[in-house]
Amino acid sequence: MRIGLLTGGGDCPGLNAAIRAVVKQATGEYGHTVIGFRNGWRGVVDGDVHPLGRQDIRNVLPVGGTLLGTARFHPSTEDGSMDAVLTTFEAERLDALICIGGDGTLHAASQVGEAGVPIVAIPKTIDNDVEGTDLSIGFHTAVNIATEAIDRVHTTAESHNRVMVVEVMGRHAGWIAVNAGIAGGAEVVLAPEEPFDIEQVVKFLRHRHRAHANFSIVVVAEGAVPRAGSSMSFTQQLGRFGEIVAGSVGDRVSAEIAERTGFDTRLTVLGHVQRGGEPTPTDRILGSRFGVAAVDAVGAGTTGVMTALRAERIELVPLADVAGRPKRVPDEMLRVAKALA
Amino acid sequence: MRIGLLTGGGDCPGLNAAIRAVVKQATGEYGHTVIGFRNGWRGVVDGDVHPLGRQDIRNVLPVGGTLLGTARFHPSTEDGSMDAVLTTFEAERLDALICIGGDGTLHAASQVGEAGVPIVAIPKTIDNDVEGTDLSIGFHTAVNIATEAIDRVHTTAESHNRVMVVEVMGRHAGWIAVNAGIAGGAEVVLAPEEPFDIEQVVKFLRHRHRAHANFSIVVVAEGAVPRAGSSMSFTQQLGRFGEIVAGSVGDRVSAEIAERTGFDTRLTVLGHVQRGGEPTPTDRILGSRFGVAAVDAVGAGTTGVMTALRAERIELVPLADVAGRPKRVPDEMLRVAKALA
Amino acid sequence: MRIGLLTGGGDCPGLNAAIRAVVKQATGEYGHTVIGFRNGWRGVVDGDVHPLGRQDIRNVLPVGGTLLGTARFHPSTEDGSMDAVLTTFEAERLDALICIGGDGTLHAASQVGEAGVPIVAIPKTIDNDVEGTDLSIGFHTAVNIATEAIDRVHTTAESHNRVMVVEVMGRHAGWIAVNAGIAGGAEVVLAPEEPFDIEQVVKFLRHRHRAHANFSIVVVAEGAVPRAGSSMSFTQQLGRFGEIVAGSVGDRVSAEIAERTGFDTRLTVLGHVQRGGEPTPTDRILGSRFGVAAVDAVGAGTTGVMTALRAERIELVPLADVAGRPKRVPDEMLRVAKALA
Amino acid sequence: MRIGLLTGGGDCPGLNAAIRAVVKQATGEYGHTVIGFRNGWRGVVDGDVHPLGRQDIRNVLPVGGTLLGTARFHPSTEDGSMDAVLTTFEAERLDALICIGGDGTLHAASQVGEAGVPIVAIPKTIDNDVEGTDLSIGFHTAVNIATEAIDRVHTTAESHNRVMVVEVMGRHAGWIAVNAGIAGGAEVVLAPEEPFDIEQVVKFLRHRHRAHANFSIVVVAEGAVPRAGSSMSFTQQLGRFGEIVAGSVGDRVSAEIAERTGFDTRLTVLGHVQRGGEPTPTDRILGSRFGVAAVDAVGAGTTGVMTALRAERIELVPLADVAGRPKRVPDEMLRVAKALA
Repeated sequence: MRIGLLTGGGDCPGLNAAIRAVVKQATGEYGHTVIGFRNGWRGVVDGDVHPLGRQDIRNVLPVGGTLLGTARFHPSTEDGSMDAVLTTFEAERLDALICIGGDGTLHAASQVGEAGVPIVAIPKTIDNDVEGTDLSIGFHTAVNIATEAIDRVHTTAESHNRVMVVEVMGRHAGWIAVNAGIAGGAEVVLAPEEPFDIEQVVKFLRHRHRAHANFSIVVVAEGAVPRAGSSMSFTQQLGRFGEIVAGSVGDRVSAEIAERTGFDTRLTVLGHVQRGGEPTPTDRILGSRFGVAAVDAVGAGTTGVMTALRAERIELVPLADVAGRPKRVPDEMLRVAKALA
Repeated sequence: MRIGLLTGGGDCPGLNAAIRAVVKQATGEYGHTVIGFRNGWRGVVDGDVHPLGRQDIRNVLPVGGTLLGTARFHPSTEDGSMDAVLTTFEAERLDALICIGGDGTLHAASQVGEAGVPIVAIPKTIDNDVEGTDLSIGFHTAVNIATEAIDRVHTTAESHNRVMVVEVMGRHAGWIAVNAGIAGGAEVVLAPEEPFDIEQVVKFLRHRHRAHANFSIVVVAEGAVPRAGSSMSFTQQLGRFGEIVAGSVGDRVSAEIAERTGFDTRLTVLGHVQRGGEPTPTDRILGSRFGVAAVDAVGAGTTGVMTALRAERIELVPLADVAGRPKRVPDEMLRVAKALA
Repeated sequence: MRIGLLTGGGDCPGLNAAIRAVVKQATGEYGHTVIGFRNGWRGVVDGDVHPLGRQDIRNVLPVGGTLLGTARFHPSTEDGSMDAVLTTFEAERLDALICIGGDGTLHAASQVGEAGVPIVAIPKTIDNDVEGTDLSIGFHTAVNIATEAIDRVHTTAESHNRVMVVEVMGRHAGWIAVNAGIAGGAEVVLAPEEPFDIEQVVKFLRHRHRAHANFSIVVVAEGAVPRAGSSMSFTQQLGRFGEIVAGSVGDRVSAEIAERTGFDTRLTVLGHVQRGGEPTPTDRILGSRFGVAAVDAVGAGTTGVMTALRAERIELVPLADVAGRPKRVPDEMLRVAKALA
Repeated sequence: MRIGLLTGGGDCPGLNAAIRAVVKQATGEYGHTVIGFRNGWRGVVDGDVHPLGRQDIRNVLPVGGTLLGTARFHPSTEDGSMDAVLTTFEAERLDALICIGGDGTLHAASQVGEAGVPIVAIPKTIDNDVEGTDLSIGFHTAVNIATEAIDRVHTTAESHNRVMVVEVMGRHAGWIAVNAGIAGGAEVVLAPEEPFDIEQVVKFLRHRHRAHANFSIVVVAEGAVPRAGSSMSFTQQLGRFGEIVAGSVGDRVSAEIAERTGFDTRLTVLGHVQRGGEPTPTDRILGSRFGVAAVDAVGAGTTGVMTALRAERIELVPLADVAGRPKRVPDEMLRVAKALA
């Protein structure tokens, strides 16, 4: 068999572990050929191939990013790029496609699958908001990085009697914020799952600084929003690359806390470091298991599916069932974050 | 309510996170009182109490070990220590007991529960072989440490054309060996789940060094055993503290590989570092969630249970269902470890 | 003897190691008494004392920040605070003062010394720009954190074909930028020591992306400045806390590169994480040696000095000789940073 | 010019940083050609060459070990291997040789230099006992790893009321033991510089456990020796690979403490992990500066020298002055280790 392989969307740690597993399992166990595409769907559309053998994956297991490159581009039926995908699939005489990606890539995979291409998807997103799987590649490393950052600002908060606001990634769900908030012992965690009332946050901090301690850590997911009708409003400005560059919620929350409490308040925006560098063992293992499972699925003719972690098992979930809406943080975790504040 | 709290068995990272969560949730949410016992069941038997308030748990979240101390001692009906447990329970006017521990502690908890004490257990063991829960406290940190060690010996193996044998913990199950083996890219993983044939290991290494590379990494769980009837036999010698000190399987495997292949072969026994130091975010979160859940269970009158992680949820499992036999590594993971060798 | 102890200026990792060493050496070796002051010189002025015994320093060695608290406040002859320092010194019947701090604290120490107080200073600054010592406490940890961040954005740069700009601390000297730049393999390092020409930077990047690679990492010290007469100008805006919040040089450099090259360019501002968290072994050792040396100096009556690391030795340098101007990065290191781009 | 390059002796983190710097500086700044030799002096003797260009050093900066391979072999005049070195030097039309290595390699370099080969040496040894330089490549990373291990066993020692003995590398000098001992807050540090009296160690531990705490950490360099005439004697047994495998001093010290005090005492032998894996920023910077300096020295015709770090500067030291005896840990550091116990 000839299997195409691509990584799409934002990069993250653990992609290379999955690529390595696909190549090892496909070429070793089955004697298949793996054809990589450069820079995600862009490479499929352009026919930019990179045949992958065992030499290409040497020593990549602990390396972040993706050796195939990636791009935030997804094929569409409107601009003809979907047709180009099908053309490449035929031209390269592929039997199946394995694509590793987040929400956008999974959506594209679903459409490509419906167009007749046998496809298996592997979920990755540091936001961890893909439905149907306990974990997506990249999330675990991001939580580690965010927790380390919270640990670091903690000592400064305590030494200087400050409120430290840490803004982490999480556009549609607060997985990083809630997990790193619990792991780092944050006093307040603001996540998209629960619109916040800045006055309640401020009241809590005032009480804490009066009664217990003279410092606090507030973790804010970039997608956190004020409760409708509450006394804080803000408008985000998007930067030249579609990113939130001003009026970020962390910026606004930090300013409101400083103004309303008078506490010395500082903001740290973690940014790109959350998605780079050496993957944790968990992300390496997850990528490895997903990669092997994806090849096995292709071998078994089970396509149109996504590999998923469910408790201790790897399962295959129909791509159609992977809902468009983001997977929410369980209420129990939101309660734990509050209980331990 | 007055809740007793103890940590039993070997120490590990994440215990303090659980202690902190129990104290915060019990004293904060419910207004309960928490009475800690020093050095595990030993402290219960001796009535060695340590009342726990919010001051005692300051800054312990990222600290390994247990602030309560622990001991490898379990109460028994034979020597009267079980009676002493019940006496202390009454003398301290406790309403319930929360105990954090591994196999031995869970067994004791089950018996104490049957004797009429409302008890909730929290599982911890770096071996991760407790049935009924996806994860036990301490395991995740141990995998990280073992993987880091494998990463480190990897560069030496490659630079010196060596076979590096790394012996990790895992008396009855190979969770650390298999996980760290996959994460570290080991060529061979020997786990208790699958008795090994040293001649097959040697044959594999010879082939690899002839065809692909001139170095290899072999990860051995301390509980790995040669297949009955295979050409390698060994007897373990127990040290003064009941530990395997000579004739360890790593030692033997290392010697056999060296003798049979002539390859430059070195052994590293990881030992105590696997169970100490700063817990990973995952172990901090797990301890936090288990601690809150245990207090909630006590509050709800649901006792005789163990907190458990099942996929993304925290559940309560009857202590009676937590089988005595160790939880095995899934076959799928054993296959992945082999496929990626 | 009764020795006063304070930490002044911004906090950093390694301060607690120095505090611990002062307390252990003073109380152990000599039987002295150590009187801590809370929140730096502010606590001396206010007489806010915190007697320090062995119990207070338990387990603080690996903990960042300062258990004494600190503040960016320095006594002055104009507002009467210098008199208050002398009053407290007498009221507490102190024989000497040990102060741990950066530029501002050292300057204050010099003046307090001239006013008749036997004083020994210990240098700390993550910027490492204190003259007379190879290293100041906190710098080494900051370099580690900055290098880790560069390592992380490296994989994203490569996967997405981007220019990643990383802004690190260093107002007057480029120690962090140059060290982390070399350690992280940055293509361009901009430090205050050498005003830069943005057009040369752009020319270099264009050439590199054409000839060698399609990504680059640019490290910018916050105090880097464009060369006079060059085509880039910028004005910094100071935030509510006296920090550079807009028009930061990293922001400007990032925008210029994006505009002039068209390359996908992203900025990461490391911020507060650089000065918090667990100190590296080097900072723990440095703090420990400085603390012991400071107490020995007090014991020997050698005051008006600063402890210093010179090659492998700890020496004492007259406070008067610690020049006001910042210690520059050696030219050799600037050349190495360029040679390895 | 054509420059030969080799790495000899045991591998360690930072070697690739030096190789990368040699290649970049030689090929970039000067337009030289670099000819690598595989597996140390063995490759020179056998003429096993590996031409090194910019592609070969991509992404090696943060990778431990040596991409050239290494071996514990040194040319000698007796077996003709010294002649073979000279033959290869001529056959490959080399103008100079840069060798990176420890004691044995430096000695060989000195002899090769005397035989007429223009040679520049770069010191590496995790033991840090090379005279003439503040630091050798690899030492700094080893201290970090050893400190992390001490941090980890610390929490177990405290939780279980144990004495934890940690044996670290250091055959002839106690640099790792003393540095990691101070950084990790060890109670006792035994180094080759000061033969120890086990009875004094035991007396100290008994006193401590009675008066202050119920746990202790003892760090032992593998080359530590009992004081002549003291009550402890031991004989080391060398393993099949010339390593100390039984009767290690850590083993003996651990047994003596357990016997004489009755304290629960455990041994951890760090072993190979100390010399592998990702180099710290310090080792990457040191390797980078040494590599550039070595090429500059060759270019300037200054040969027969070793690159050295002296305070903040890189200097060149005549190979003849690099004494055969190991560089000792300064007395001041030994005193600090004791003062902070």
